[in-house]
Amino acid sequence: MLFRVTILGCNSAIPTTKRNPTAQLLNVSERYFLIDCGEGTQIQLLKNHIKMQRINHVFISHMHGDHYFGLIGLISTMHLLGRTKELHIYGPSILKEIIQLQLSASNTELCYPLFFHPLTFESSSLIMEDDILEVYTIPLRHSISCCGFLFKEKQKSRKIIKDKIKEYNIPLEAIQSIKEGEDFEYLGQSIPCFELTKPAPVVRSYAFCSDTAYDERIVPVIRDVDLLYHEATFMNNLKERAEQTLHSTTGQAASIASQANVKRLLIGHYSSRYKDLEPLLIEAQCVFPNTELAKEGIQYEIPLSHVVNS
Amino acid sequence: MLFRVTILGCNSAIPTTKRNPTAQLLNVSERYFLIDCGEGTQIQLLKNHIKMQRINHVFISHMHGDHYFGLIGLISTMHLLGRTKELHIYGPSILKEIIQLQLSASNTELCYPLFFHPLTFESSSLIMEDDILEVYTIPLRHSISCCGFLFKEKQKSRKIIKDKIKEYNIPLEAIQSIKEGEDFEYLGQSIPCFELTKPAPVVRSYAFCSDTAYDERIVPVIRDVDLLYHEATFMNNLKERAEQTLHSTTGQAASIASQANVKRLLIGHYSSRYKDLEPLLIEAQCVFPNTELAKEGIQYEIPLSHVVNS
Repeated sequence: MLFRVTILGCNSAIPTTKRNPTAQLLNVSERYFLIDCGEGTQIQLLKNHIKMQRINHVFISHMHGDHYFGLIGLISTMHLLGRTKELHIYGPSILKEIIQLQLSASNTELCYPLFFHPLTFESSSLIMEDDILEVYTIPLRHSISCCGFLFKEKQKSRKIIKDKIKEYNIPLEAIQSIKEGEDFEYLGQSIPCFELTKPAPVVRSYAFCSDTAYDERIVPVIRDVDLLYHEATFMNNLKERAEQTLHSTTGQAASIASQANVKRLLIGHYSSRYKDLEPLLIEAQCVFPNTELAKEGIQYEIPLSHVVNS
Repeated sequence: MLFRVTILGCNSAIPTTKRNPTAQLLNVSERYFLIDCGEGTQIQLLKNHIKMQRINHVFISHMHGDHYFGLIGLISTMHLLGRTKELHIYGPSILKEIIQLQLSASNTELCYPLFFHPLTFESSSLIMEDDILEVYTIPLRHSISCCGFLFKEKQKSRKIIKDKIKEYNIPLEAIQSIKEGEDFEYLGQSIPCFELTKPAPVVRSYAFCSDTAYDERIVPVIRDVDLLYHEATFMNNLKERAEQTLHSTTGQAASIASQANVKRLLIGHYSSRYKDLEPLLIEAQCVFPNTELAKEGIQYEIPLSHVVNS
């Protein structure tokens, strides 16, 4: 029951030899979700021993190159390695055109099905769900259409306590309804379902806020998430530059985290001017102490937890 | 009077963490020519301390991703860094469409002029020249339209010998015609121009043969070049695989070098299956002893030389 983000790239657009452009791998119970895919992401996957063919869903936040220039290379390599499984891509609709043009230029007919899911950017909407997870967009304020992504586990039903099955001689066919909240009749007595079950784990959530100026409209969408990634391209002294380029400062990222009551904040998308990232961390922690730096190759895990006394 | 090739990537399409896809930087007298531009080339330029803004001409051999997926990133970074100089790109015409679509997707209007020169692939043709260099295409046999590039210095005129100016009291206005081959009249005597001048350096040439099956039609185009890069994706035991995929073996690359009487052969575009490249070198050297391995970060220089006794 893993819920883990691995940072593959944490830099902003101008390349450096020390950090890669944006890409992250979210692993939820061994289902792999790739979030953004800057140039060099396939090499970052290799270096981090992440099997690219296990990725079935790719989410692209916007059409600035540092967030998607690595995608066509990844798609091509998956093809060259003989992939047969479906790949689903969620991104701005023009991305589909670009991919199609590039595939046609190399006369490539992919050996696997590629499904494209165009995004809209006006309001938060559910764009994917399976049996364990839902993914919503998070509209952001940037120089071109841009959104983040909220990954949220689905609420599971409570678990039956095995000892109680014996104690009250509960038949198999009654278990599902007890888990869903019905009490159980035993020798003329009503046994409360809460006595027969234990709570399911608390749902976990991760919000990825790609490129954005400070925007309080994000707050209700990401409220209470376990882990928030919010860009912090600049330090506080470059607040004007941040506003001009529609990016955020460390203090602004931390303020959003604080207002949204998130549990942990991860900052990233650092300007190439910053060699040492500690000062960015210190600034963010002044506003939101539970801040960490996004660093490449580092895994950020959200552990499974249960509500106490329920 | 430099003439130097720096290898930035020497691997074939399937990525590895050890080698990058094809890219080379040719420096002719401090003019920079980029040849192919696989994913990650801009980082390779940085790592090799090559200033990307000094590149004014980019040559793309064909539309397989391992030869051009890094180009849009390079174009974008040049823009972000405030380039104002012209950039000239020579490649298949669809490449222009792809670049335009990607720029429009990010709402980018480049801050420098980008000129696109579409290639044709039927026969060798002159595609660029300046005062010191000519560039010709080399039609290749591959699964999609593909060509190599022949870089050839222009023949310079002979140099006047300074001491002879004094000795024969040669006026300034006569020098150019002497250099171009006229004899000089001195006290009723004809002084042969060869006595008054020394030969210009021998013209140097580099041929880049990107992706190609064995094809003897290349031979006359690249005859006598100083340095030939010829792909050698496979070892000799995979000759059938080479033919299927329209690539070459080490022996085939060496055979072309031998038939064309080139001075040195550089092999590259290695299949990712080869960790140790020495066996490829040994095979090629069996046919053409003056073979070297293309290795990233290594510079291959063609020294200036003069014809002896002329």
